[in-house]
Amino acid sequence: MVTAAILGCAGYTGQETLDRVLAHPELEPVALGSDSLAGEPAAALDPRLDGDLPAFTTNAAAAAAGADVLFLCLDGDEAAAFEPPPGTVVVDLSGAHRLVDADLALAWYGAAPGAWSYGLPELYAPVGSLIANPGCYATAALLALGPLAGEIDNVVVDAKSGVSGAGKTLRQSSHAGFVLENLSPYAVGAHRHAPEIAQQLGAPVCFVPHLLPVRRGLLATCYVQTSADVRELLEDAYAASPVVRVLPEGMTPELARVQSTDGAEVGVFTDGATGTAIVICALDNLGKGAAGQAVQNANVALGLDETAGLRLHGVLA
Amino acid sequence: MVTAAILGCAGYTGQETLDRVLAHPELEPVALGSDSLAGEPAAALDPRLDGDLPAFTTNAAAAAAGADVLFLCLDGDEAAAFEPPPGTVVVDLSGAHRLVDADLALAWYGAAPGAWSYGLPELYAPVGSLIANPGCYATAALLALGPLAGEIDNVVVDAKSGVSGAGKTLRQSSHAGFVLENLSPYAVGAHRHAPEIAQQLGAPVCFVPHLLPVRRGLLATCYVQTSADVRELLEDAYAASPVVRVLPEGMTPELARVQSTDGAEVGVFTDGATGTAIVICALDNLGKGAAGQAVQNANVALGLDETAGLRLHGVLA
Amino acid sequence: MVTAAILGCAGYTGQETLDRVLAHPELEPVALGSDSLAGEPAAALDPRLDGDLPAFTTNAAAAAAGADVLFLCLDGDEAAAFEPPPGTVVVDLSGAHRLVDADLALAWYGAAPGAWSYGLPELYAPVGSLIANPGCYATAALLALGPLAGEIDNVVVDAKSGVSGAGKTLRQSSHAGFVLENLSPYAVGAHRHAPEIAQQLGAPVCFVPHLLPVRRGLLATCYVQTSADVRELLEDAYAASPVVRVLPEGMTPELARVQSTDGAEVGVFTDGATGTAIVICALDNLGKGAAGQAVQNANVALGLDETAGLRLHGVLA
Amino acid sequence: MVTAAILGCAGYTGQETLDRVLAHPELEPVALGSDSLAGEPAAALDPRLDGDLPAFTTNAAAAAAGADVLFLCLDGDEAAAFEPPPGTVVVDLSGAHRLVDADLALAWYGAAPGAWSYGLPELYAPVGSLIANPGCYATAALLALGPLAGEIDNVVVDAKSGVSGAGKTLRQSSHAGFVLENLSPYAVGAHRHAPEIAQQLGAPVCFVPHLLPVRRGLLATCYVQTSADVRELLEDAYAASPVVRVLPEGMTPELARVQSTDGAEVGVFTDGATGTAIVICALDNLGKGAAGQAVQNANVALGLDETAGLRLHGVLA
Repeated sequence: MVTAAILGCAGYTGQETLDRVLAHPELEPVALGSDSLAGEPAAALDPRLDGDLPAFTTNAAAAAAGADVLFLCLDGDEAAAFEPPPGTVVVDLSGAHRLVDADLALAWYGAAPGAWSYGLPELYAPVGSLIANPGCYATAALLALGPLAGEIDNVVVDAKSGVSGAGKTLRQSSHAGFVLENLSPYAVGAHRHAPEIAQQLGAPVCFVPHLLPVRRGLLATCYVQTSADVRELLEDAYAASPVVRVLPEGMTPELARVQSTDGAEVGVFTDGATGTAIVICALDNLGKGAAGQAVQNANVALGLDETAGLRLHGVLA
Repeated sequence: MVTAAILGCAGYTGQETLDRVLAHPELEPVALGSDSLAGEPAAALDPRLDGDLPAFTTNAAAAAAGADVLFLCLDGDEAAAFEPPPGTVVVDLSGAHRLVDADLALAWYGAAPGAWSYGLPELYAPVGSLIANPGCYATAALLALGPLAGEIDNVVVDAKSGVSGAGKTLRQSSHAGFVLENLSPYAVGAHRHAPEIAQQLGAPVCFVPHLLPVRRGLLATCYVQTSADVRELLEDAYAASPVVRVLPEGMTPELARVQSTDGAEVGVFTDGATGTAIVICALDNLGKGAAGQAVQNANVALGLDETAGLRLHGVLA
Repeated sequence: MVTAAILGCAGYTGQETLDRVLAHPELEPVALGSDSLAGEPAAALDPRLDGDLPAFTTNAAAAAAGADVLFLCLDGDEAAAFEPPPGTVVVDLSGAHRLVDADLALAWYGAAPGAWSYGLPELYAPVGSLIANPGCYATAALLALGPLAGEIDNVVVDAKSGVSGAGKTLRQSSHAGFVLENLSPYAVGAHRHAPEIAQQLGAPVCFVPHLLPVRRGLLATCYVQTSADVRELLEDAYAASPVVRVLPEGMTPELARVQSTDGAEVGVFTDGATGTAIVICALDNLGKGAAGQAVQNANVALGLDETAGLRLHGVLA
Repeated sequence: MVTAAILGCAGYTGQETLDRVLAHPELEPVALGSDSLAGEPAAALDPRLDGDLPAFTTNAAAAAAGADVLFLCLDGDEAAAFEPPPGTVVVDLSGAHRLVDADLALAWYGAAPGAWSYGLPELYAPVGSLIANPGCYATAALLALGPLAGEIDNVVVDAKSGVSGAGKTLRQSSHAGFVLENLSPYAVGAHRHAPEIAQQLGAPVCFVPHLLPVRRGLLATCYVQTSADVRELLEDAYAASPVVRVLPEGMTPELARVQSTDGAEVGVFTDGATGTAIVICALDNLGKGAAGQAVQNANVALGLDETAGLRLHGVLA
């Protein structure tokens, strides 16, 4: 067995990472880090967790537990300050190590980029043992547009996410009295996932996120000018992927269908009036947009089956 | 008092129109048409309606009741086949008479345009007694972009609507098991409100609607290339409007805040990476997007106070 | 005009009280108290509020503004510590002054009951100028059961409320990631509205509240053993009420129909298997369950039309 | 491998049963029956289903396919008319064969009970090869109260279910415009799960179901008079169960935590004012309340591991 430790295990991405580790045939959770739950049994997070799991420790203790792979489910500044133990595979689910440009990394995350590899296995295979896990919005936009890089102009990404994308932290904008029966655009034209998308596409992106009244799931509607055969490029890119599915002509991705899974759906359309290419990607912000991709990246780095531990099967209504 | 008849009173837009007529100081509802409820008392639609209201009649009987103003809350083909009584103000809430171009009208609604006037009072004041009430999506896109007409390129309108926009008719896509915890794009690049928006803007529009898991309300995020001073044009356009509010810099429109009202909010932004102008409009698809605007149009045509009967005040949480 | 001041105007009940005061033909809002917004214009609470309103002041300043009527939209302990200005009508929307029994008042609210009158106009008309406004759950249970007092046994009240019932304060249990797609019972058999209901009924009550994934609205399903003619007692009690509607036989109350109104619906049923009487009441926790009832109580105390300012009309979908 | 056929595979319970069969290490789906999809590939139901699955056939053809186990995911009258192939294990997910009393079976389902065994493995182990799968509400009420049978009086079950409990059929009451921001009691004191619960408890039950604005999940709040040690009886009953978890003192079941799982949570409380015992059970109406329990029953009848194929692990947020 490969031993795994999770830091920040009590947040959404930590809990979801634990879920995949528990389902993984070759990963064994040996340390659950949470500064708020340290000393408590695993069941303190959720009564579904039983007594075979280790009790929570501090994040520092979890980092020092000697695990083969570490999942950092921390805030960006905590992750930026983290010192990776030599020889350990580390997957950082925060944004701290995503931006390669030093000025951008400093401006958006107050962090130096360091020697981390951006890992989105279908498009940008992680290299080495320090892996920056992409943002949820960036994953959706890149799955939609990455295979078209270099052939697109005037990129607009209009994205919509469930509330878990903002984490468990208590904020007015996550209060159910604000979220229910609402749709709220935010960080309009000024979200930190925009430079991340632009970095990977090599082109600037106009990006607007919106908060949906759903618990989890994300859909990005992408508009581009291009003369490429968009469908062909996307179908070629994902022909062999067990994770990303290009839908048949005329079929639209739906958030509900990928909810609680680690897969993604991509739909391809052409606007009848303007010829604009429209590529839509749906995924679960906590699945392919976070924990699912983190475990997928770890699998690649560890030489395991790429989809081990992932939620890719089933047809829940 | 001015007498009013509502045809199709049992649907969402009919019921909401009745709501505004009941609140209107100068309109008196003299006929409630509904082919499905004909013969039933008003309370058959909703127990809140009391015995002072006339019982339901057929739509044909309501049309023949001699009312001063008729509200057509019918399907497009029923509205297309409707013969307006001479001398009566008629507001058609369907799409049948919105498109001026005969080919487009035929293609999208199977209807000839006839002598109807497109009425969106803030931008296109209705003329004469036959008024085509704009579509809900079109109203939002036009409130955002109408004042910029002639100065914008590459128009993308990404819109999101609550489920009441699709009416009370039973459809798989309106089933709560489909709608809840979902976001579903539909008619991608091929929705009939696109030619309506284009007609009024004088420019083609790339338009994608999405179905939200909310009961009512709509938000359109519009992206354009322009060298105009977008904020100035919009603030000038709505400076005197009691219905449309341009929000201060940095403030985003929210669906919840306009829900169950007849007002609209407009927010203006510039994308930090690409300079794209982003104009966001929120309104209630059944309010300013349908019944509220219909009564507003009727007020204009009848020479009444333009906002009589509308829900514009209050600060519901 | 009668002058009104609202303390705690930035919370849900404060904002909703302001909404009714604005709609009231005889109340004039002369002071808006909010310790967090003091010094800000009214639009800081909501852009719908315009410049004619006074700016926010501290709650202390609002209390001292000399208004004819004060609405206390404060936490229980703030309300308990409040010194009513002599000769002023004060409606306390908190629980501080609802319990008459000194031990219970101390146990549940840390407060002495003092000389306040419990005001639920349909059943318990307020007396004097200091009025304790009932709890939202208590209002629903009492509208269902109050007319049956003395004739019922084994009272079970199973209640379900939207999230605004818990206020705007940030809590894990109000986080949308907790509320959406969830139903959560809380304070099971130990909620402070239970002694309030029992006090008014003169009988102990088994009460369990549940948190619904809705923004506003509340429904209480009440089960009692009785030999009384339940429907007759309820229909008699509310025959003349413009606020409470007893539905016809077989018709069920629905939360959505009373949402954003100040009315209430009551349905009466008999269980086919056990003969248990089932009385169901639906109301809006912020309307008849809080701000609507507060204004109704003020109207009674001030000798105004009892329903002035209330939202009782209309048929919103 | 044991071969399995599903009749009515395109409905909610059929799709969910297929989900468990696909996850089952020893069941092989050899026939997917659906009269509406007959002739279509499996992906016609959901794009997640791939080409290894058989195409849809008529229900009659699926029944005749010679599978070792048949899952009937049909309407009650279709199931009542179904002739079980000799020697085949058949699990009927409809209500047709749940009621043992011939008069009740006729009154509620128009069916004769026949030789079917009621199967709720934790309490009533199925016997023989024809198994009546319990109703979703009945499962929750019985998990809460079954271990107390014979020791309880004045049973009230107040239940709340997500909309998938009513199936995919298009109904006004399943329209999202009706369901969202609503809570709707229905079949008050007259629901067909009441006699089913009473049959198993041996005592009459007052039962009221409510429709929640959630996609899936169910919570039953049960009130009883008893002198038994309720917690002890429940903890003893489920001490060894991998499916049903009695929560520690003070902890409440939550619908969200069991959503999309085949497990159930039970919470035990005593009302502070009346001494009433309150037992709350949460489960997923499509999981333990339908497909999960159906596969569990099949496992028992086939001598397989009782929880094979079930969704019992993981800690999804």
